[in-house]
Amino acid sequence: MKFVSFRKGAATAPGVWLGEQVLDLAAAGQAGGSRAELGSMLAIIRGGDAALAEVRRLVARATEFPAALLPASGVQLVSPIPQLVRNAFCVGRNYMDHVKEGAAVAGAAAALPKVPQFFTKATHALNSPTGDVRLDTTVTQRFDYEVELAIIIGKGGRDIAPADAMSHIFGYTVANDFTARDVQRAHEQWFRGKSLDTSLPLGPWIIDPEEIGDPTTLELTLTVNGEQRQHGRVSQMIFDLPTILAALSAGLTLEPGDVICTGTPSGVGYAMNPPQYLADGDVVVTRVDRIGELRNRIVKVK
Amino acid sequence: MKFVSFRKGAATAPGVWLGEQVLDLAAAGQAGGSRAELGSMLAIIRGGDAALAEVRRLVARATEFPAALLPASGVQLVSPIPQLVRNAFCVGRNYMDHVKEGAAVAGAAAALPKVPQFFTKATHALNSPTGDVRLDTTVTQRFDYEVELAIIIGKGGRDIAPADAMSHIFGYTVANDFTARDVQRAHEQWFRGKSLDTSLPLGPWIIDPEEIGDPTTLELTLTVNGEQRQHGRVSQMIFDLPTILAALSAGLTLEPGDVICTGTPSGVGYAMNPPQYLADGDVVVTRVDRIGELRNRIVKVK
Repeated sequence: MKFVSFRKGAATAPGVWLGEQVLDLAAAGQAGGSRAELGSMLAIIRGGDAALAEVRRLVARATEFPAALLPASGVQLVSPIPQLVRNAFCVGRNYMDHVKEGAAVAGAAAALPKVPQFFTKATHALNSPTGDVRLDTTVTQRFDYEVELAIIIGKGGRDIAPADAMSHIFGYTVANDFTARDVQRAHEQWFRGKSLDTSLPLGPWIIDPEEIGDPTTLELTLTVNGEQRQHGRVSQMIFDLPTILAALSAGLTLEPGDVICTGTPSGVGYAMNPPQYLADGDVVVTRVDRIGELRNRIVKVK
Repeated sequence: MKFVSFRKGAATAPGVWLGEQVLDLAAAGQAGGSRAELGSMLAIIRGGDAALAEVRRLVARATEFPAALLPASGVQLVSPIPQLVRNAFCVGRNYMDHVKEGAAVAGAAAALPKVPQFFTKATHALNSPTGDVRLDTTVTQRFDYEVELAIIIGKGGRDIAPADAMSHIFGYTVANDFTARDVQRAHEQWFRGKSLDTSLPLGPWIIDPEEIGDPTTLELTLTVNGEQRQHGRVSQMIFDLPTILAALSAGLTLEPGDVICTGTPSGVGYAMNPPQYLADGDVVVTRVDRIGELRNRIVKVK
């Protein structure tokens, strides 16, 4: 099942992407006499198994709610989590070939991280799957991309055991962890260069774990103006998803709706020879197969 | 004026600390026919100058609202921002003597940061001014303290100029940036070791800038079981408040209610010889003069 959020007047609303159509869940729930809270993606995630069962029931009966079935071509998707409840969590240096290319730029030997390296992206980084990405050249001259598989947390918790971790995943989506390399380097801590407004396009939808099956079989690709820059497989992660969730939640409570970006493979612009940074008008397509793709234009604002 | 948040049944409510009494702002607003949104600290901050003027009016007329005047001794304070809208921002290495003591531990020369080093603390770190602080020895064996002056953002914005920065400050409060040094070191990025649940006591109240005047005259102290460990002056900051706000908001939108911790002076436990880490039952008192103090007990949970 593909969960989306879309513009509905001045607000956003949750839906299910059915290919030609989008089922407006709040409208379908009202028409179908649902008692579940279906007013927002976050409410559905917080609703747990009961809300999910209700969504499945509505999707199965979708044709009974014609007013809630919107032509997909007329639906404007926003990030499937339309507003972050707090900063997005991210894992750095989680693909061996990306660690190697970073070490090569630094002229150092590639040392594998011993534990996942976590940082966050501030909430205004969130962007829609097709949103413009701000390029402020007074802030950064070295703006770069990173394709990533993102996890959305369903059931929250602290001290999650690796064996239980996968049951805490509500679904998967695609993220681009756009990064100002010069800012990242200058501030040493990565947070600042990772947190520019609009630098986290997310989507186009959240797919539930049942539909994805084994996430390690997923492939990630990224193109800039049609030229492939990144390609990797989730199986190449240094720290797998259970390890990430256990390490992150040790003494730190995860919440329903939390977004966790899980790292990027090699091919980032700063490691190219010569380095290639993003420029005004560039179109970046960020893809995870069997999930979907983001398509974002870089727009110079200053 | 001292803005507090306190327990009111199962919820929290905003008030003004008057010494012997606390004015319950929602109750006073109702009794006084206020049309401002005074239901939460965040609503008051978002309400801007109009909400502030209304609070001042209610405080001036406080004796007219006896039912809204609560004996201070019976009021249980929570963090003045009772729920973080997103991760708290923090500045690392912002006092020269703290930079020096860290360099000494590492056996390196003390190099001043050229720009502020920002990281975040996750939202469940938030703790009340007298709340117990969790010590999970399966997660950290090296748990440490850091007294800090914290800023609460009033008017949000992006690309804030240094000359305008002080007008974006709603008020000042006291923070302790409790840190798991072993986790901080292992994960390299500081976020993980800074983000344990309950590791950010904040309060006891937010004082408005008019009452504080020049914040560079403030002094910070911290004691553990009565023994003074830290003492510093805000005037010793490497990056002052306008510089911090301008650097943080470059391309990154700040929000009303954002919390920014501004760094700690020397005297942290890991830089002592031999290092002194926090243990079960330790009482940490974190103080900024002319603002107030936090008093937190370390409680071993595992």
